[in-house]
Amino acid sequence: MSQFTLDPQLGADSLPLLELDLCTLRVMNDATYPWILMVPKQAGLAELIDLSIEDQHRLTDEIRVVSKALQAVTKCDKLNVAALGNMVRQLHIHVIARFEGDAAWPGPVWGKVPAVAYDEMDGNALIADMKRAIMAEL
Amino acid sequence: MSQFTLDPQLGADSLPLLELDLCTLRVMNDATYPWILMVPKQAGLAELIDLSIEDQHRLTDEIRVVSKALQAVTKCDKLNVAALGNMVRQLHIHVIARFEGDAAWPGPVWGKVPAVAYDEMDGNALIADMKRAIMAEL
Repeated sequence: MSQFTLDPQLGADSLPLLELDLCTLRVMNDATYPWILMVPKQAGLAELIDLSIEDQHRLTDEIRVVSKALQAVTKCDKLNVAALGNMVRQLHIHVIARFEGDAAWPGPVWGKVPAVAYDEMDGNALIADMKRAIMAEL
Repeated sequence: MSQFTLDPQLGADSLPLLELDLCTLRVMNDATYPWILMVPKQAGLAELIDLSIEDQHRLTDEIRVVSKALQAVTKCDKLNVAALGNMVRQLHIHVIARFEGDAAWPGPVWGKVPAVAYDEMDGNALIADMKRAIMAEL
């Protein structure tokens, strides 16, 4: 099996957050929504069902940890969890904190408004808060 | 705990497909995309993390069965799997067969083009094919 490397587009759109056993975690560099990207570190995956059954359960566990942390950090009104991958085929899972009245509410976030990069202090603050919250859930 | 009842909006937008242990399965009544709706049959759920950990794993298993069946029936280019729920809060999971060049490609399906109801023969054919394919995966 070839080695995992993060898709360059996913890398360009996001900031490093944390490594879990299965997934590398990134923060989407879009200050419009607190938005975590989870990428299982295995080469050649496109669909959730490309993972082994055991790894599908591990992914479910990691999605739970990230979801609870994001909910705790942001006090969001709703979580959106999705594996789409129509544009970037490397398997990746979006976990997004949604607020009533946010820029895309109540629609999905994709393609609604252009991404607004974090200023460094805000990006670092979210990353630090999420690291702490994820550690507390592990 | 109060009893589960399907959200009226979800019910109006979809056709009954099959009962699994955890989820009731429905076909979205939109001939534009082969689109399965999975609704865990427990009252008061809004988020994936509202399910017990055991039921999160059961849901993962049922999503796998539905995904494989939908892929087998449609020979789609990509699966989209998502739990959004910004409009209808009752927890529901979308499993959608996507094709390069479909009406929303490569964007997400939600809110792109108005739903086109199945004519009865086509709707029944998809339901019959999906039932057979799901049984084969169980």
